[in-house]
Amino acid sequence: MEVLLKDNERIDDLERNNLKIIQDPGRFCFGMDAVLLSGFVHVKKDSKVLDLGTGTGIIPILLTAKTEASQISALEIQEDSADMAMRSIALNNLNEKIEVVVGDIKEADTLFQKASFDAITCNPPYMIGEHGLKNPKDAMAIARHEVLCTFDDVARSSAALLKPGGSLFLVHRPFRLAEIFETLKKYKLEPKRMQLVYPFVDKEPNMVLIEAVRGGRSRMTVLKPLIIYKQPGVYTDDIYNIYGY
Amino acid sequence: MEVLLKDNERIDDLERNNLKIIQDPGRFCFGMDAVLLSGFVHVKKDSKVLDLGTGTGIIPILLTAKTEASQISALEIQEDSADMAMRSIALNNLNEKIEVVVGDIKEADTLFQKASFDAITCNPPYMIGEHGLKNPKDAMAIARHEVLCTFDDVARSSAALLKPGGSLFLVHRPFRLAEIFETLKKYKLEPKRMQLVYPFVDKEPNMVLIEAVRGGRSRMTVLKPLIIYKQPGVYTDDIYNIYGY
Repeated sequence: MEVLLKDNERIDDLERNNLKIIQDPGRFCFGMDAVLLSGFVHVKKDSKVLDLGTGTGIIPILLTAKTEASQISALEIQEDSADMAMRSIALNNLNEKIEVVVGDIKEADTLFQKASFDAITCNPPYMIGEHGLKNPKDAMAIARHEVLCTFDDVARSSAALLKPGGSLFLVHRPFRLAEIFETLKKYKLEPKRMQLVYPFVDKEPNMVLIEAVRGGRSRMTVLKPLIIYKQPGVYTDDIYNIYGY
Repeated sequence: MEVLLKDNERIDDLERNNLKIIQDPGRFCFGMDAVLLSGFVHVKKDSKVLDLGTGTGIIPILLTAKTEASQISALEIQEDSADMAMRSIALNNLNEKIEVVVGDIKEADTLFQKASFDAITCNPPYMIGEHGLKNPKDAMAIARHEVLCTFDDVARSSAALLKPGGSLFLVHRPFRLAEIFETLKKYKLEPKRMQLVYPFVDKEPNMVLIEAVRGGRSRMTVLKPLIIYKQPGVYTDDIYNIYGY
């Protein structure tokens, strides 16, 4: 299939179900966090899923391989990123399954029907505010810093768009864990499942995966540690399994 | 030194600084959680420390070996347990350093001077309410279930008794993590440091160690995983170090 690539863009192989993605190394390329989040998600067959802040669409594309979701919506505020996502979706013949909507997470509850999703995924910006940013408008800054939306916006919109009992799946940084739990609980999104991701077995975790359930009861499961490397440069079996090699 | 032992009581060696403790196996014996908590605590020289719900006094006794705290108060509501703690303290010649007070955590802020402690430690009951209890008044039930005090009581009293910038050190169960963070934040006790304790590297954690700082800023450090066994029956080096063998 022929797909139009713009300057500096390239097509990367996702090593799974022959899926591919268009990325521009000068903008923002997906990281391990998106892959681990897609491995952490579990949804029932024929679920309706929304990815908030989809970027180039990596999470929806991986979810088509990893879940039996029937319909995935993807919201992205940056037109250039949304355009790359749409072309990647076409490249993978997934137009029937994934729709991309250009819009703002803060207004997501007016762009989609309320209480209509079984699951929402989000790999939000991790850093607070614009502290230390030289170019707060560039794609990298918007993906990493809470320039255009805060974690509170993500939680509020998710609470409005999830069905009762639906799940929000997140990846974030451990240093914000207490604040994340507090904000989720404020919107009645109960943290029910958590996994800390440690680069090595004797190092501090650098990612946390969280599932929060709309209206869930207060009791959570913390999973076994997810350890990335068993020795420098060699992934653990858990990581190989998630990557699907 | 001669110490009066009551029926069923025994003297156990703590394998550290020649310390000993009086326990009654029919009541409640300290567990690994108390030892791990005492290893997680860090206080400056000459700190004033309070242990809430001290039981037989295991945490204050271990803290004399593991920290340079100058004065440790220990609050216990059960007279029999407090009596054992006092005799263990005498047995270890620690009367100058540790005082035992018989009283209720819910009234702790009337038993001690407000904002007077540099650090508070607590190994609280983990289980909610009296669910499934046959004898809600026995020592084991009171130590394990929130019969006489809730986690909210622990947090409220700690917030009243800590100096600004003082630390609350807790051990608890991971399944209550979201609720614990929410309650701590409600009383302006900011979770600043956390470590999950995994029995094996590939198992779910069964304990969590938390340090919350009165009036601290919202940003926490999650430590490397604390793993108990490297193989069945064989502790990891981290555990040997904490036990001080």
